Amino acid sequence: MREFKRLIPYREALEMLLNDLNEIEDTEEVPLDGALGRVLAEDIVSPIDSPPFDRAAVDGYALRAEDTFQAREYNPVEIKVIDEIVAGEESKAKVEPGTAVKLMTGSKMPEGANAVLMQEMAEREGDVIRVLRPVAPGQNVAFAGEDVRKGEVILQKGQILRPQDLALLKSIGLKTVRVKRKPLVGIIVTGDELLEEFDEEALKAGKILDSNSVMLKGLVRQYFGEPRFYGVIPDDAERIGEAIRKAREECDLVLVTGGSAFGEKDFAHRFVNLLFHGTTIKPGRPIGYGERTFVMSGYPAAVFTQFHLYVKHALAKLVGARNYEVRVRAELVESVPSQLGRYEFVKVRYENGKAKPIRKKGSGIISSLVESNGYMAIPEDSEGYLEGEVVEVVLY
Amino acid sequence: MREFKRLIPYREALEMLLNDLNEIEDTEEVPLDGALGRVLAEDIVSPIDSPPFDRAAVDGYALRAEDTFQAREYNPVEIKVIDEIVAGEESKAKVEPGTAVKLMTGSKMPEGANAVLMQEMAEREGDVIRVLRPVAPGQNVAFAGEDVRKGEVILQKGQILRPQDLALLKSIGLKTVRVKRKPLVGIIVTGDELLEEFDEEALKAGKILDSNSVMLKGLVRQYFGEPRFYGVIPDDAERIGEAIRKAREECDLVLVTGGSAFGEKDFAHRFVNLLFHGTTIKPGRPIGYGERTFVMSGYPAAVFTQFHLYVKHALAKLVGARNYEVRVRAELVESVPSQLGRYEFVKVRYENGKAKPIRKKGSGIISSLVESNGYMAIPEDSEGYLEGEVVEVVLY
Repeated sequence: MREFKRLIPYREALEMLLNDLNEIEDTEEVPLDGALGRVLAEDIVSPIDSPPFDRAAVDGYALRAEDTFQAREYNPVEIKVIDEIVAGEESKAKVEPGTAVKLMTGSKMPEGANAVLMQEMAEREGDVIRVLRPVAPGQNVAFAGEDVRKGEVILQKGQILRPQDLALLKSIGLKTVRVKRKPLVGIIVTGDELLEEFDEEALKAGKILDSNSVMLKGLVRQYFGEPRFYGVIPDDAERIGEAIRKAREECDLVLVTGGSAFGEKDFAHRFVNLLFHGTTIKPGRPIGYGERTFVMSGYPAAVFTQFHLYVKHALAKLVGARNYEVRVRAELVESVPSQLGRYEFVKVRYENGKAKPIRKKGSGIISSLVESNGYMAIPEDSEGYLEGEVVEVVLY
Repeated sequence: MREFKRLIPYREALEMLLNDLNEIEDTEEVPLDGALGRVLAEDIVSPIDSPPFDRAAVDGYALRAEDTFQAREYNPVEIKVIDEIVAGEESKAKVEPGTAVKLMTGSKMPEGANAVLMQEMAEREGDVIRVLRPVAPGQNVAFAGEDVRKGEVILQKGQILRPQDLALLKSIGLKTVRVKRKPLVGIIVTGDELLEEFDEEALKAGKILDSNSVMLKGLVRQYFGEPRFYGVIPDDAERIGEAIRKAREECDLVLVTGGSAFGEKDFAHRFVNLLFHGTTIKPGRPIGYGERTFVMSGYPAAVFTQFHLYVKHALAKLVGARNYEVRVRAELVESVPSQLGRYEFVKVRYENGKAKPIRKKGSGIISSLVESNGYMAIPEDSEGYLEGEVVEVVLY
């Protein structure tokens, strides 16, 4: 059997891949309501100050702080209430020395006032309040532009939109937002041994159920993409070649599982001009990439690894996404040895600051993916980590 | 102004809430392909061993380990290859002493064989291989049930389905999966001061744009729910009462923003028999809950806090979701003081094991939500945490 002459270091291959791909230029204008999880296509500059005016930060009395400087409990200052407004109203009154306007949290500050006395701090009788303690200038006032300033970049291109981001966009007056088109990702699953549907006899005879397609569709959706499935294709060079050609024409990225090694029936990589083939990652070594096409392993755990180490970053590059990974620090609860020269993808269960390696080995083992909620990487120059060491875990 | 006679401790209120709500019993059968992010409605027991048979873990030769025990490089053992199969095929040959079957990773082990010699380790000439080193019994064999055992619970009720979970379900022969119906969540936004659409004049006169609705819709979607929006309703007791009545009839849970305090125009809480009203959380103290209805603040940052501290857990209870929060440990990079008696929700930016508190204060400040990616809670009996302390952060 041919083998890989040289395994390309993980990061070197990743760099080749990212250099080869161009960010998608197409964008879409979507209503804020449909923008959750989408990737922002441009910096957002606020067209307004928010709040657009100085406003009261509590329910109470807008007044001139100077008028209260002499106020003591034993010597209250009396101030006349000249207007009262409720939320969303604006007082036209001008606060002159010795006067106040009653207002509510969020109300626009009336002219002349520079502080708000909390309602609970005032003793009221008719249209007069007695102030028992001084109020500082600016106290209980939320100033114009305090949340967002006009001209400020409030969200950056590449932001994956969360509920609070949508709220901010709405608060500056937007109804829609420009996001990146979702990359269309073709998925081709190959292998004579694969069944699309449960068939007990066939399983007994050595076939296995294809689980890569449903997993890859889910992963593509998780990472900004729109999957398009081209079916399970037997190990037939012509049919595989045709599917790859079609998918590459229709999609931004193509994922082919099976046929990435050098077995007699490994056809897929023959139809792609590969930029690289065979990297130091473990599991998943026989990955190949070229012409917007990944030639991946057939084994689910290897495919999962290849997705997280390469395909995920390719998708992020296509849409220009920022902060798409959650990286946490964790104390390792068991030692993990690693082979020098391999970039090991170690599945872990992260909980409460601790990472427990999931031991089940084998590229076909899906249950280890299910038990884990993240991975740690052990680079080529490390022989592993010891129990108690602090490692970086990427959650998934 | 009336005030809260007593603030209910955060956890006490949370417990009252969770005791009051019942898990939704309705479930739906959905195709695996549409089940990403849905909540599993029942334990899944595997009907099969997976793999269903012992199989080769590498490409190579299935043989009897005993036949190789005498093999040395200077004294190779010769073994006859009696059959060759490719992926998905089954060999009918029986491996007798001195014979082997060539097979591929994943192939079913032929009768009589108990180990696989890696292809690279054999020297082949015609139908004879020379074995240079002994192979141990069981070596390079993936045993039946190694991934999943028949009768084993492979996924538990309440699991939020991820791509790898769908792969596991597919690998045991499922095409569909039973998930919880999404809870329908009514959203009612109240307040005379609120605008649904940008209007410069109105904004200058003291109105503000409603950003709660788009934020709550997003949060509800993030946490297993289906939002239904009942509009922005002015401070009119009758209309608010009517909207609450309608939403409660149609939905599993109702969120009303605005009107949770005791201002003259705070109507919402009058239409709900509240189990509790006013808790120790900060911001967001005036939250009320009763009869499947939350009466929430009007200020976005308070609403966001109330959602994460209460509503999120209510939604998880409705669907029986497990592991819906990502909790990480972080070193605090700045001291955070806190008021005794208050359960403080402190927004933080988590990065690389460190948590930076986001300082901008004020319930109306949305930009602090946007800058943060998680929160830490400071319970009622703590005066805060010091720089360098390790705290727990919940990511969002």
